Amino acid sequence: MDREKLIEVLREKKARVDELVFQWLPRASDTPETDLLSKMMSDYPSRTGKGLRGTLCLLVHQALSGEEEKALPTAAALELFQSWILIRDDIEDESEERRGEPALHKKYGVPLAINAGDALYARMWEILLSNREALGDEKTLQLLSEFIRMTIHTTEGQHIELSWVEDNRWDLKEEDYYAMCGKKTSWYTCITPLRLGGLISQADQALMEAFIPFGLNLGIAFQIQDDILNLTGEEEKYGKEIGGDIWEGKRTLITIHLLKSASPEESKEVLTTLSKGRIKKTEEEVRRILQLMKSHRSITYAKAEAKKFSEKARQIFEDRLKSLPEGEAKSTLRSIVDFVVEREL
Amino acid sequence: MDREKLIEVLREKKARVDELVFQWLPRASDTPETDLLSKMMSDYPSRTGKGLRGTLCLLVHQALSGEEEKALPTAAALELFQSWILIRDDIEDESEERRGEPALHKKYGVPLAINAGDALYARMWEILLSNREALGDEKTLQLLSEFIRMTIHTTEGQHIELSWVEDNRWDLKEEDYYAMCGKKTSWYTCITPLRLGGLISQADQALMEAFIPFGLNLGIAFQIQDDILNLTGEEEKYGKEIGGDIWEGKRTLITIHLLKSASPEESKEVLTTLSKGRIKKTEEEVRRILQLMKSHRSITYAKAEAKKFSEKARQIFEDRLKSLPEGEAKSTLRSIVDFVVEREL
Repeated sequence: MDREKLIEVLREKKARVDELVFQWLPRASDTPETDLLSKMMSDYPSRTGKGLRGTLCLLVHQALSGEEEKALPTAAALELFQSWILIRDDIEDESEERRGEPALHKKYGVPLAINAGDALYARMWEILLSNREALGDEKTLQLLSEFIRMTIHTTEGQHIELSWVEDNRWDLKEEDYYAMCGKKTSWYTCITPLRLGGLISQADQALMEAFIPFGLNLGIAFQIQDDILNLTGEEEKYGKEIGGDIWEGKRTLITIHLLKSASPEESKEVLTTLSKGRIKKTEEEVRRILQLMKSHRSITYAKAEAKKFSEKARQIFEDRLKSLPEGEAKSTLRSIVDFVVEREL
Repeated sequence: MDREKLIEVLREKKARVDELVFQWLPRASDTPETDLLSKMMSDYPSRTGKGLRGTLCLLVHQALSGEEEKALPTAAALELFQSWILIRDDIEDESEERRGEPALHKKYGVPLAINAGDALYARMWEILLSNREALGDEKTLQLLSEFIRMTIHTTEGQHIELSWVEDNRWDLKEEDYYAMCGKKTSWYTCITPLRLGGLISQADQALMEAFIPFGLNLGIAFQIQDDILNLTGEEEKYGKEIGGDIWEGKRTLITIHLLKSASPEESKEVLTTLSKGRIKKTEEEVRRILQLMKSHRSITYAKAEAKKFSEKARQIFEDRLKSLPEGEAKSTLRSIVDFVVEREL
């Protein structure tokens, strides 16, 4: 499947999922005193995203059962999880922008934004409980367990990354970065969405297990590509401040490579800049880091590593996901393996 | 039941609930990379609280069924909800202290504290799901619904209160304050804990409905008393900075009364001080507000109003909770109605 066709499929799926998301979110006019809360809850879900998590869930379910309907509420819950985690993430990283607009806490302040995130998260559980009628109590509870497991992994990964910043740690190995990404990104971006699709359509145990290494590798590839786009993307497509990770002092595969390749003087300079808080950095310092990343080919290196992870994912896909029936849904899933490292958005 | 006996009962119940809470929280040594996360998750649950929410749930269940065991996981989940909401609340209000120690975000910074709260909240759902074995799938899902409803009310109440601060609104009526308290405090402190105890022991619909007005009034009485203790309590017992609400510019029944009773000059002075951010206020200004609250008898007024709400609660208790069998548990519940407005902690 070519890229344009895939983007079209993602867009279609996302539109159907979004329809359900907005049915569950409170309307601004329902309760005058909490009008703004409703508006804030709809804010991130209204911004253009890829809808990747919901789509992965729908595709697995479709490949196994041929239908889409039954997985829609779960896909909608995944998209709300994503909005919730982005609200958190933007506050925790002090990010300025998200999907081409100011971050939620930049628009409304940190206190209201934290609270709106909590309110959104509650609606996620509400959508999940609505599965009772179509899927029955037992399966609904299994889906809830997967969401809990996903939250635990994601918060652990987030904790590890935030601790590195808090403790100003730079003595990191590539393995540390991959372990962090696996927790922070892979579970909620790939592993859990795939497993949820599997659960809804009664996938066998072998397939449910195989989604873990497949999703783990795919998620790490996704995150490396995200770090690359953060430095080299087009702001309009990527929707975040370019170089934001440098401003925020994020630890990425690219900074790890740079610190390993740079001369002792350069390393010192890099560490001095990256360790400073956002407001203490100058544009020139940030540009200089970006230039060093380019001259040491750290971005090129990261691209090659991302490709390795996506190839590993493809290999697991062909070996261990064989029992997933061939057809349009599976072929779309296959295209997504390339897409995660080739995407510009 | 006299006060000392009641405090003893609360302490016993809390000890049993806490035992379960700590069985569910990750141990610091389990995962070295997230050691600090585990430590942060156990922080608020380890601080001395009253354990009121868990106890209300246990008491209703005990009154109806004579046993305690089956309600313990749900009581533990309520206590985790309480810890989670306090982490949030302290960040959102920029509070300095909680239960006699620095607030979590004061110890570890806002980003890690937000994330630790999220991780704690996930464990709450995990404990709730553990009810499946003892209570069955249907009841477990009903309990989850109650938790979702509680979260929705609490975040709406929190939003209303935070918006008043954000918009610097002081044109508030007592009714506005009561409506906010009902959402912010009553649902999670009283209504839901009572209803959960009822659900576990198959309370009839009439009783389940009656918990709402009973808990609503009891919760408002509780919140007014909390606002009073915030101004007049002994720091050691209350565990928070005395006068913290003045520093934080909180809207309470006391400030509403003061603004209504004060002379135009005084009102202007009060508004000027309260509207300033925490760091711009001086100790003298805060003391002056407290003095005006005393001279206008605003605290005395609030005490009388709290008493009215607890009396209303008692009346509903005797009228509409008649079907709750008499015995030790019911008699403890009755004592709690007085306790909420007489407590010093």
